[in-house]
Amino acid sequence: MSRYLDYKLDTEERVADLLAQMTLEEKCGQLNQRLYGWQTFERVGESFEVTPKFQEEVAKFGGIGALYGLFRADPWSGMNQENGISRANSARVANQLQKYVIENSRLGIPMLFSEEVPHGHQALDSESYPVNLARGASFNTALQQEIAEAIAAEISDKGVHLALASALDILRDPRWGRAEECFSEDPFLAAEFTKAITTGFQASGRVAVILKHFAAQGEPVGGHNSGPVSIGMRELREIFLPPMVAAAESGALGVMAAYNEIDGIPCHANGALLTGILREELGFDGIVMADGCALDRLLAMNPDVRKAGAMALTAGVDLSLWDEVFPNLASAVVSGDLDEAVLDVATSRILRLKFQLGLFENPYVSENVPERAKSWRDLNLKAARESICLLENRREVLPLENTQRIAVIGPNADALYNQLGDYTAPQNLADGVTILQGIKKIAPENTRISYEKGCDIREKVVGGIERASELAKSADTVILVLGGSSARNFDMEFLNNGVVSSKGPNMDAGENVDLADLALPAVQLELFRALKKQGKPVVVVLVQGRPNAIPEISEQADALLTAWYPGAQGGIAVAETLFGIVNPSGKLPVSIPRSSCQLPVYYNQKAGEYKEDYFDERGAALYPFGHGQSYSDFAYQEIHAIHQSRSIAELEAGGKFQFKVTIQNRANRAGSEVVQLYIHDQEASITRRKKELKAFQKVEIGASETVEVTLEIGLAELQIWSNQNRWELETGTVRIFVGGSSVTALETVIEITNGVR
Amino acid sequence: MSRYLDYKLDTEERVADLLAQMTLEEKCGQLNQRLYGWQTFERVGESFEVTPKFQEEVAKFGGIGALYGLFRADPWSGMNQENGISRANSARVANQLQKYVIENSRLGIPMLFSEEVPHGHQALDSESYPVNLARGASFNTALQQEIAEAIAAEISDKGVHLALASALDILRDPRWGRAEECFSEDPFLAAEFTKAITTGFQASGRVAVILKHFAAQGEPVGGHNSGPVSIGMRELREIFLPPMVAAAESGALGVMAAYNEIDGIPCHANGALLTGILREELGFDGIVMADGCALDRLLAMNPDVRKAGAMALTAGVDLSLWDEVFPNLASAVVSGDLDEAVLDVATSRILRLKFQLGLFENPYVSENVPERAKSWRDLNLKAARESICLLENRREVLPLENTQRIAVIGPNADALYNQLGDYTAPQNLADGVTILQGIKKIAPENTRISYEKGCDIREKVVGGIERASELAKSADTVILVLGGSSARNFDMEFLNNGVVSSKGPNMDAGENVDLADLALPAVQLELFRALKKQGKPVVVVLVQGRPNAIPEISEQADALLTAWYPGAQGGIAVAETLFGIVNPSGKLPVSIPRSSCQLPVYYNQKAGEYKEDYFDERGAALYPFGHGQSYSDFAYQEIHAIHQSRSIAELEAGGKFQFKVTIQNRANRAGSEVVQLYIHDQEASITRRKKELKAFQKVEIGASETVEVTLEIGLAELQIWSNQNRWELETGTVRIFVGGSSVTALETVIEITNGVR
Repeated sequence: MSRYLDYKLDTEERVADLLAQMTLEEKCGQLNQRLYGWQTFERVGESFEVTPKFQEEVAKFGGIGALYGLFRADPWSGMNQENGISRANSARVANQLQKYVIENSRLGIPMLFSEEVPHGHQALDSESYPVNLARGASFNTALQQEIAEAIAAEISDKGVHLALASALDILRDPRWGRAEECFSEDPFLAAEFTKAITTGFQASGRVAVILKHFAAQGEPVGGHNSGPVSIGMRELREIFLPPMVAAAESGALGVMAAYNEIDGIPCHANGALLTGILREELGFDGIVMADGCALDRLLAMNPDVRKAGAMALTAGVDLSLWDEVFPNLASAVVSGDLDEAVLDVATSRILRLKFQLGLFENPYVSENVPERAKSWRDLNLKAARESICLLENRREVLPLENTQRIAVIGPNADALYNQLGDYTAPQNLADGVTILQGIKKIAPENTRISYEKGCDIREKVVGGIERASELAKSADTVILVLGGSSARNFDMEFLNNGVVSSKGPNMDAGENVDLADLALPAVQLELFRALKKQGKPVVVVLVQGRPNAIPEISEQADALLTAWYPGAQGGIAVAETLFGIVNPSGKLPVSIPRSSCQLPVYYNQKAGEYKEDYFDERGAALYPFGHGQSYSDFAYQEIHAIHQSRSIAELEAGGKFQFKVTIQNRANRAGSEVVQLYIHDQEASITRRKKELKAFQKVEIGASETVEVTLEIGLAELQIWSNQNRWELETGTVRIFVGGSSVTALETVIEITNGVR
Repeated sequence: MSRYLDYKLDTEERVADLLAQMTLEEKCGQLNQRLYGWQTFERVGESFEVTPKFQEEVAKFGGIGALYGLFRADPWSGMNQENGISRANSARVANQLQKYVIENSRLGIPMLFSEEVPHGHQALDSESYPVNLARGASFNTALQQEIAEAIAAEISDKGVHLALASALDILRDPRWGRAEECFSEDPFLAAEFTKAITTGFQASGRVAVILKHFAAQGEPVGGHNSGPVSIGMRELREIFLPPMVAAAESGALGVMAAYNEIDGIPCHANGALLTGILREELGFDGIVMADGCALDRLLAMNPDVRKAGAMALTAGVDLSLWDEVFPNLASAVVSGDLDEAVLDVATSRILRLKFQLGLFENPYVSENVPERAKSWRDLNLKAARESICLLENRREVLPLENTQRIAVIGPNADALYNQLGDYTAPQNLADGVTILQGIKKIAPENTRISYEKGCDIREKVVGGIERASELAKSADTVILVLGGSSARNFDMEFLNNGVVSSKGPNMDAGENVDLADLALPAVQLELFRALKKQGKPVVVVLVQGRPNAIPEISEQADALLTAWYPGAQGGIAVAETLFGIVNPSGKLPVSIPRSSCQLPVYYNQKAGEYKEDYFDERGAALYPFGHGQSYSDFAYQEIHAIHQSRSIAELEAGGKFQFKVTIQNRANRAGSEVVQLYIHDQEASITRRKKELKAFQKVEIGASETVEVTLEIGLAELQIWSNQNRWELETGTVRIFVGGSSVTALETVIEITNGVR
């Protein structure tokens, strides 16, 4: 037996032993993830055959590093219930392919299976949770960790090792179609969530997370998908790196490089980023995966495929995705463009991960895949409930009481796929609950519920507005469900990296579907105006993957809430909120703009003396970051700083500033509140932001109860990337703000001293 | 006699001698430009008295470094024909103040007088030229140099030494109110213009230019005036530094630091920028002036005025402006916050400039100020003519022929101040020509010309649209003059740095007046639609300081041209163009957007595989950079590269790539064409832009004539700020595009080789 197969040996020893036995082509094969999973099998009835394409790839490289998307089902892959891999068949097919690789390669190195899990596994028969932006609104990190654990359990039962999860993108330009994949516009909130899901996904030791995307993809010039990013190093560190810092600290085993360039250097060729910052500075020692076909894009800078490959590998990319660049690494070594030692480093990383995940000992999984757990659905529903942000509630229209006749209207009222976001597999419709269905389930028994679509997302429905107006006329209350959609359908065309290239008229969000004008489509506003004219209270529910600009609705809707894309259980959660079974607790994870013209409106803009308002528009957002109402009524009463000042030395030794905050629930109904702490550093060698979120806590407060919450901040929250270009604490005063949104209620001041008196 | 007064000695020796004699307070006084010029005198009839405030300042500091805006007249200063300094009195008052300083200070160091000259001297009785953005459209650098020479002559006759001229700002976000002060969105064009005006202003040796602003002010986040800039070092070097590089090469003696921060460091505290790049890298050895009250803003980072002053001085600011920071430098030395050696360096720079400009030998000017030269007005008119960009000309509506009855309509048709831009002094109305007046002057004798305002810039005029429609009905042709305005009036309120803080309802541009929505105001579109309904050809003339978004007008106007803010002679130039006496030759110095939602739309975006179009809007501009029609018809026939390839060594030794371009004028009317050459580097260690302007030539081409134009590029145009963070040539092919706009007609390829075969 080769030493690398001896599980008792140290991993590094096993890696070295295996590497020493490998040919150039075999090493290259370990960095190869060229195949689309759905090209590797052919389904005949309920049995599966390995395709010649797969066999050739195994033969060519003496194995395969990783196989992407074996279970992926969606319009792009063309996989569905008819031709794809069901939950029940999944482990069997994974084992079959794994067996083929092991038995048909000289060294028998098992494959890694990688799968998309942005909001659940993008595969048939899987649980579909709220999207990241929705989950961001929960401010509940423990819940995110549980969801990640649930997803990890779901995929590892199927034989999957790598969980591709969006986490690192920060939502700085809401025109960007992938807004829904971001947890927040705020780096601190996103970092807390990234920490939670990294821990959750990797808790079992059977799954490695691949966090998407590194780095700065959320601020492309013009909001164009995968467009260039022109920010400097300090903005990068302040806004885009925090989630990665948190991930590295949490032991993340993988990241995916981002499509974009940063200040002229593509992330995939960016050694300062992928090696300097990621490995040397943050101590990350997992693998870096390329984004789909991203390495092919380097050919625009360097037309020689060997040189382009060497450029990416040297910068720090370890594993390819679909591209035709890394499959040529062996020839780059032969031509002298690439030092084999560099290839060895990347190969070692892939091998190390396979040893760490136990692939050599346990390459196969039980073929008896368990049913979906009831607990997952409970988690899913809880996540949807906590995602809902109540923005307006005039004359306490909500919760609905004594409503006999409800008209449910709008393009997103009865459209399951529109609740689910991009990267969604074909659903078993019985598993999902639309908002209309949810209302029917939850409404008191004698309520009469009628429905009319009214219009589509961006197109008229013949007679729709007229019929909707009629319904409204005879109802007590109108529930109008508007918004956007990232649903894909089987008529669309896709590029080789899976993004939509044709235009679905009513699909205005998701990857590669950027929006110039964030206003709700004209046809939806027309519907809203027609319904308002009927004189009945109109409760607007938004189902959306990005913050739309909604000045008119904000002003005129009788109540307004956003559910984001709330997932398959979203209909229940919305209905429970409307009827007061759930008390809304979501807080905006992103500022809601008045219009595209005033972008950007993120709350954490730089402080300083400059013109904030435009001649024709305010500079401030329509709704600020962190905002969200409750059926309770929380009064922030007092803040008490336990420490008025601490020295740099104390803080570096782990000392914290602690704050006691007193909050009263003045309503006689219990509710949850997200207590938020922001800082503004008043003296620094660099300019600081107006406010920066640095701590939060979600607390339940009973009816008429008063609670005291303790929040703390320390070195990590107070250090800055100084004008000396290093993280450091600087002396001076720091203002502390606490409240239920970024427009805060309480304030105090602390001081960082040099300890010399 | 002190040695410093001996003009035969070397300047450095004189500086050293004088510096050695100065007290701390006197040095501090030389860096002081705290006073507003209009506070230093009191006019009584035609005589002037020195104010106590001025006397105190001279006494306190034993002199004054520079005096800002002695002649400034405008609503902010409150100076006008009644209480200000006329042209005739100007030299006399300057001499009087200068004499006071010399005679009432121990060392008798003369003052520098600094004045605003963004588009002519902002003083009474001065020539008011087109704004920079208009002049940028001329692509005529020789003309800009002549204008700068004319302005320099005008101000130095009055005793002025420092010409504060906008030049360095690059127009990247047209929401910014100071768009008009930029020459272009393009760094190469702006650099050529900066070179021209620097040479022009300084040609006589009597004036030093202070170029505004260093650096990157044209890309504030959100387009907010003096807002933060978050770009990285490469973007800074590629887009914002070229004008400063050109200025340094042309011997510019002064620059003004910019209000904004760059990636967290305010320019005024940015040693890497003001010393590292500016002096060490570019070899600049003039003075750096602060922007107005900008040093006070540093107190937000460093509340101690001595430390803030030390921070700015150490970074490289030499001369203050209105702030209360630099007047405390002496106490900063006393407290140990500032090394006196740093103060000495800055003081030496101010003194050196005074010696260089001959102030010690000739502190006074002739009090017999000559009349304005006829040649200046000719230059002014020529500049206005060449600024006009013809964008549409359907069915050859223009030039107007056989038109009997013309209706001139619109808020900018008869509004002189709206033609002049921000930083404008009260005018002698007889000196200026509005568009209505110009049409009346230029139209054939029997033309009947009627006028109606129709609406104001952003407000209705009672009955205006109805009256305008009536006029249109009875006219052959409608000339509709729309746009924006930067005019200030005496009712407004201003901040202590001179920017408007109150809102003029019909003044939607200029400093501190940023616009969220670039669309023309609703009332103007309403007027346009009403006039179009009358069935007569509608020629739209835009008078504007920024590119408005004009999709509807672009589509429906029968002809469309923009004159930008064309200056006091703009009315003549527009009329001459309408009637065909002038053949338009202006080219857009900035891309015209379809809407604010698609910003940014500058043409030189990064190449790369990313989503350019939005779901709901195209990504491309409505009119591209460099576009502009003519009454002639230019056909680009052929491009011939004299050198297909050159080595790095050849290029570094001064070798050029030359291109012969053949262009035919297919019309039987002579005209001028701006032949534009763009490059796209196909192989580089960094990402490159789709196209970059690297050469242009404005040529006159006779009726039906064919010409050959030679364009060349070399080291300066081909080097890049590589991934090694240095300027270098890299081998590989470069595509060359030539045409009459950035949407080019001809193409070839060259190669940069390493010379090894």
